[in-house]
Amino acid sequence: MIQFRKYLQARFFVLGMALILQISTAYSQEHPQLNLTKEGVAKIRAELGKVPLFDSSLADIKEEVDAEIASGIHVPIPKDFSGGFTHERHKKNFLILQKAGVLFQILNEDKYAVYVKDMFMAYAKLYPTLPVHPQERSYARGKLFWQCLNDSNWLVYASQAYDCIYDFLSKKERKYLEMELFVPFANFISEGNPQFFNRVHNHSTWGNVAVGMIGLVMDNDELLQKALYGLKTDNLTAEMRDNDGGFIKKEGQKVGFFANVDEPFSPDGYYTEGPYYQRYAMYPFLIFAQALHNVKPEYKIFEYKDSVLLKSVSTLLNLSDSDGDFFPINDGQKGMSYYSRELVTALDIAYLFGGQNPELLSIAEQQGKVTVDDAGLAVALGIRNNEAIPFTKTSLELRDGPEGDQGGIGILRNEGMELVFKYAAQGLSHGHYDKLSYSIYNNGNEIMQDYGLARFVNIEQKGGGNYLKENTTWAKQTVAHNTIVQDETSHFNGKYEIGSQHASVKSFFDAESSEIKIASAKESNAYKGTELHRTMALIKDENYSFPFVLDVMRVTSDSLHQYDLPFYYLGQLMKTNFSYDSPKSLEALGTKFGYQHLYLEGKGVVNQDNISLNWLSNDIFYTMTAVSDKDDELLFTRIGANDPEFNLRRDPGFIIRRKNVKDAIFVSIIEPHGTYSPVSEFAVNAYSNIKSVKVLQNDEKYTAIEIVFTNDMVKTLIIANSESSKEAKHMVTINAKTFQWNGPYYLSNK
Amino acid sequence: MIQFRKYLQARFFVLGMALILQISTAYSQEHPQLNLTKEGVAKIRAELGKVPLFDSSLADIKEEVDAEIASGIHVPIPKDFSGGFTHERHKKNFLILQKAGVLFQILNEDKYAVYVKDMFMAYAKLYPTLPVHPQERSYARGKLFWQCLNDSNWLVYASQAYDCIYDFLSKKERKYLEMELFVPFANFISEGNPQFFNRVHNHSTWGNVAVGMIGLVMDNDELLQKALYGLKTDNLTAEMRDNDGGFIKKEGQKVGFFANVDEPFSPDGYYTEGPYYQRYAMYPFLIFAQALHNVKPEYKIFEYKDSVLLKSVSTLLNLSDSDGDFFPINDGQKGMSYYSRELVTALDIAYLFGGQNPELLSIAEQQGKVTVDDAGLAVALGIRNNEAIPFTKTSLELRDGPEGDQGGIGILRNEGMELVFKYAAQGLSHGHYDKLSYSIYNNGNEIMQDYGLARFVNIEQKGGGNYLKENTTWAKQTVAHNTIVQDETSHFNGKYEIGSQHASVKSFFDAESSEIKIASAKESNAYKGTELHRTMALIKDENYSFPFVLDVMRVTSDSLHQYDLPFYYLGQLMKTNFSYDSPKSLEALGTKFGYQHLYLEGKGVVNQDNISLNWLSNDIFYTMTAVSDKDDELLFTRIGANDPEFNLRRDPGFIIRRKNVKDAIFVSIIEPHGTYSPVSEFAVNAYSNIKSVKVLQNDEKYTAIEIVFTNDMVKTLIIANSESSKEAKHMVTINAKTFQWNGPYYLSNK
Ligand SMILES: [Ca+2]
Ligand SMILES: [Ca+2]
Ligand SMILES: [Ca+2]
Ligand SMILES: [Mg+2]
Ligand SMILES: [Mg+2]
Ligand SMILES: [Mg+2]
Ligand SMILES: [Mg+2]
Repeated sequence: MIQFRKYLQARFFVLGMALILQISTAYSQEHPQLNLTKEGVAKIRAELGKVPLFDSSLADIKEEVDAEIASGIHVPIPKDFSGGFTHERHKKNFLILQKAGVLFQILNEDKYAVYVKDMFMAYAKLYPTLPVHPQERSYARGKLFWQCLNDSNWLVYASQAYDCIYDFLSKKERKYLEMELFVPFANFISEGNPQFFNRVHNHSTWGNVAVGMIGLVMDNDELLQKALYGLKTDNLTAEMRDNDGGFIKKEGQKVGFFANVDEPFSPDGYYTEGPYYQRYAMYPFLIFAQALHNVKPEYKIFEYKDSVLLKSVSTLLNLSDSDGDFFPINDGQKGMSYYSRELVTALDIAYLFGGQNPELLSIAEQQGKVTVDDAGLAVALGIRNNEAIPFTKTSLELRDGPEGDQGGIGILRNEGMELVFKYAAQGLSHGHYDKLSYSIYNNGNEIMQDYGLARFVNIEQKGGGNYLKENTTWAKQTVAHNTIVQDETSHFNGKYEIGSQHASVKSFFDAESSEIKIASAKESNAYKGTELHRTMALIKDENYSFPFVLDVMRVTSDSLHQYDLPFYYLGQLMKTNFSYDSPKSLEALGTKFGYQHLYLEGKGVVNQDNISLNWLSNDIFYTMTAVSDKDDELLFTRIGANDPEFNLRRDPGFIIRRKNVKDAIFVSIIEPHGTYSPVSEFAVNAYSNIKSVKVLQNDEKYTAIEIVFTNDMVKTLIIANSESSKEAKHMVTINAKTFQWNGPYYLSNK
Repeated sequence: MIQFRKYLQARFFVLGMALILQISTAYSQEHPQLNLTKEGVAKIRAELGKVPLFDSSLADIKEEVDAEIASGIHVPIPKDFSGGFTHERHKKNFLILQKAGVLFQILNEDKYAVYVKDMFMAYAKLYPTLPVHPQERSYARGKLFWQCLNDSNWLVYASQAYDCIYDFLSKKERKYLEMELFVPFANFISEGNPQFFNRVHNHSTWGNVAVGMIGLVMDNDELLQKALYGLKTDNLTAEMRDNDGGFIKKEGQKVGFFANVDEPFSPDGYYTEGPYYQRYAMYPFLIFAQALHNVKPEYKIFEYKDSVLLKSVSTLLNLSDSDGDFFPINDGQKGMSYYSRELVTALDIAYLFGGQNPELLSIAEQQGKVTVDDAGLAVALGIRNNEAIPFTKTSLELRDGPEGDQGGIGILRNEGMELVFKYAAQGLSHGHYDKLSYSIYNNGNEIMQDYGLARFVNIEQKGGGNYLKENTTWAKQTVAHNTIVQDETSHFNGKYEIGSQHASVKSFFDAESSEIKIASAKESNAYKGTELHRTMALIKDENYSFPFVLDVMRVTSDSLHQYDLPFYYLGQLMKTNFSYDSPKSLEALGTKFGYQHLYLEGKGVVNQDNISLNWLSNDIFYTMTAVSDKDDELLFTRIGANDPEFNLRRDPGFIIRRKNVKDAIFVSIIEPHGTYSPVSEFAVNAYSNIKSVKVLQNDEKYTAIEIVFTNDMVKTLIIANSESSKEAKHMVTINAKTFQWNGPYYLSNK
């Protein structure tokens, strides 16, 4: 961090000079023009009272803004972290500013413009007096907030408000605000903080967009070019890191808004940091795209990179469970969903500018509101005209990487069951060391969980609402995930420098059949000399009510290791088919790589071919049935060791541990099979439908798994381990029976 | 248990003889007559297709029964515990029998009568061949099921089916069924099991009603008299216990149905075992009351004991949280609610025979179904005719004991907050050692929990679905509750013989004011030589959004003791205002009385006047602020020690421990004060509104508590400790200020 202080001091000289030159020459443009347009406003006014969802959304923001106007203007001297008073107040201010601007345009009542103007004047008086924010934690401290990121949020929203009242202000007032507030503000988060502005990161996206938005309002092309293509020089070095441990600069890195579209978005519209951050970035991406489209259509932003910005909205909707919660991949906070304000905006814009896909209308109906602008009106009109059709989430693969060649996320869905299989790239500084990990959902409830992050966003009493140290010591570590840990050490030794150089490699993905949906991927860099190859299938048989998950994890190595495979089941354990010892006192399972946060609650021994674990979760019975080796250790764990501040949830886990082997295969079935009702007190199908699971063959070429059901049905899945093309012909004889097929896998039913 | 085996063998001789004499002389009565009547059926047929809720309820049972008819008749040889196949099948049979009978009457299709008849014939063939059930756990083993209780369930439902097809059967068929099945069945659960039949207990209620119902159908007055007044002789002794540890016989105990109304029901309609068992007993009480009313109106059963049976339905509805879940008092399984089938029946009957209270209709609307009979039609008609008005749950006291003089349950409600304060009697064998304990709910979510029971009802893999040993070692123990534990020993030494002789004593209850609702009670028998006096108030101040709970627990003793006051908060700990040590490994807090099930997760020291604990639960921030003593120990606990089978939930707790004192006062405030949204990520009012709490005075006559708020408002609550009448005049001078008032308490605002 110290390297930055000096660096920043040096930059400020430059900044002082730049200031004067960058004031835009007043130039008469039409306003508003960003998210509201003159024609849009006219149309909105004409439809007022006739479009229910628009009217109620308008009434909501009116009520909110009127209450704020009544409470007066509050522009406190910045002091607090997120969650604290000054932080929350400035955050509220920019949200209200934007809404007040919109109300002025739509309702044509001066009081809203006056409110915006007065608040801007208060900021223009305060801003020039501000040093950097007193909280020192950030690698890029803001002035209103503890980090430039939040200052950028402020400017993105404030720009829209400025656009709305632009014509209401006198030329002199505009000049004053631009000189005292907007231009210095834009310069501070760009020239003043190149380590923030000149990156490929969601932070920089906000920074770029903030500068771009105010540039568009002021018709300042210098700011716009900076926004689109970054600062020309930045003096950043390759060693620099942010306070999350992420790199600042990569050799040859392009920067600016376009670079932030190019790099983190895959051709499938997957954002490499994961859905939680994609949601966060969605707002600046789309609000700016809309503004750029409106003001500078020549950039053809919505067509850019094969329309990836529009595509990314549907991608993001597909990255949510049945009730709209985003899968908590990487540093994702659970509970964030497509009900967030960012998704309302993104969806409305994607609808208006993306061909008015009627499936989006059904999500907007669930959201229950629209943005109060051109896009929101279009959505509300579509709903009013009964054009909505259901948004169907299907099984799909979302490739990762700018070119789509850095692995991906495989999502397998069938009848309420959702399997999320992660074989993606590292995901920048918010990535976890969780190669080939997975999570399972049933009707929107987590069954095998991804822990998510160790942070309580904006809750001040938990570390100022910022990342907790347990995010590094636990949440990011491999053992916190449903994947293989070798020798109690995280993938890539838990080192970002290494992890960020590698992505897993997809073997195949096939979700065409209604009976089996399957994905397979390999990881050979997580541990040197060891290859992990996992194949996961979601299988539905007509004889049983629920689909089940079959997990085949093959490990091949050049040397002897210990392998741990954790299962973070959620719910209450009902029964096991093996015996285990329970320790008298609970000790941590290890000392590092996350093991220091696990208590050992029980240790079992294997004396059968299959072990099973039966549990109840949200009134559904599940069983995990696994193939076991004679020397396997079975560990019951509980999160919470070495967590004196109770930052972690006390969730259960189960680990299959195999010691002193080079190669290993872990096969397990995770199966919902019955229901319980605490009201009727009926337990239906409380026990597994699986009689046995067996590895029939496992070598370089093929792995064959046989599942026998309680009704004596037999399913055999054969996976082609080395030749996974769709066309390849295969033939293999197992137990004197010959199987012949084309493609990477074969499922037989008997 | 062994004493019973011999006893039962002896009884069987008598039984063989009794059989022949008890066959009813065939006598022509009108059928159906129990829950359906001839006039009722005519009315139902006339309204078919015109009463939506009735029609949909009818369609539901038709679909269910048609599927069963298609699947054929299954009457397996009894073998399993609850949760197992034969248990669940026989249970399903009686439910379907009853529904099929109803369908025959309403739809007038013979296939339903034929199905009922065929199944009865199968039972008539099987029953005489059956020994007692092979599972030996019960003190009163049944024949179809492991306990007579379930056999009685069978007969209660089967009687209704018999009533419905009575006229469809030939005289000869009836004679055969009665001789082979119904009479021996009724005799077995009565004469054959006096230790089951001749008790005051929900088990006996079912037994009495089963015999009474079949007696009514057959017009067999001998059975009816047995049902109403019990067996004349039973040879039971005072030492006998059931398998839950409950007494069988009390000296001078009246028995039979009337005794089972007289004794467990208080004049307020509170059933001493608690709402979970009241719900369970509600069905036989009301279904039999309805039948008795229809067939033998001369008993005036609905007027009996000041109409307590009708009153008890509203009482039970009031014993549920905002979303209808019953408070898990005593051995209550969480999740049981007024959506249960028993409550649908009870509510419909209470509506029809209890003056057609339109508030009940709103609950029926929530239930979404009605019973398919006379009562259900009345309810569905009321709803169709838009007569429903909201059922308002208010603050109320429910007195316990046959005469209402054995303490009670105080329920304080205000704006979504519900405080349940228990100062009742023991609650028979399902009672817990939890004198003066409480639980708190906010909008239907548990904030300070009552653990409930340690049982997974009907889930076979958990101890056959029966009570787990942790129910005794944990759930019933005092330390499992939010109340005082002296010297790490449960109330009454955890002895039922002692506990069942005492009830707490109400001091006062006042819920008239909208600002403060308050209840106060004393317990002087839980610990010899020690008196506990707890006053709990729910206070709402117009300056704050949420009401808060003030808890004043006074302990006075003749000798030195250790006092533990646990707080079973639910949610994630955010922050404390005191420091504490975290142990490296987790050990059990003690060795008995439930302490063996608590891990110690942290131990704090007090160096301030108030301690506070801030947590987040269901997106609401709470703070507990307590007055502390300099030597108090603060213990963070976690349930789950010595629980090798994972029978207990790993829930958190917090204990204030005070050592080596005679008298003590524990004052705490439990306060919701803010909200969090994982979607907007806004945290609002994350911190407590309380600046300080202080005991101004505490002596034999008065206890005065001063609360200072962050806005400098001051509230002072003065409790009159020894004179709690409404009329008494009080005057006390505290810190030179004189307070004067009438009644048991005074709240001043400054
Ligand atoms: Ca993770
Ligand atoms: Ca509830
Ligand atoms: Ca209890
Ligand atoms: Mg993760
Ligand atoms: Mg969900
Ligand atoms: Mg309890
Ligand atoms: Mg509830």
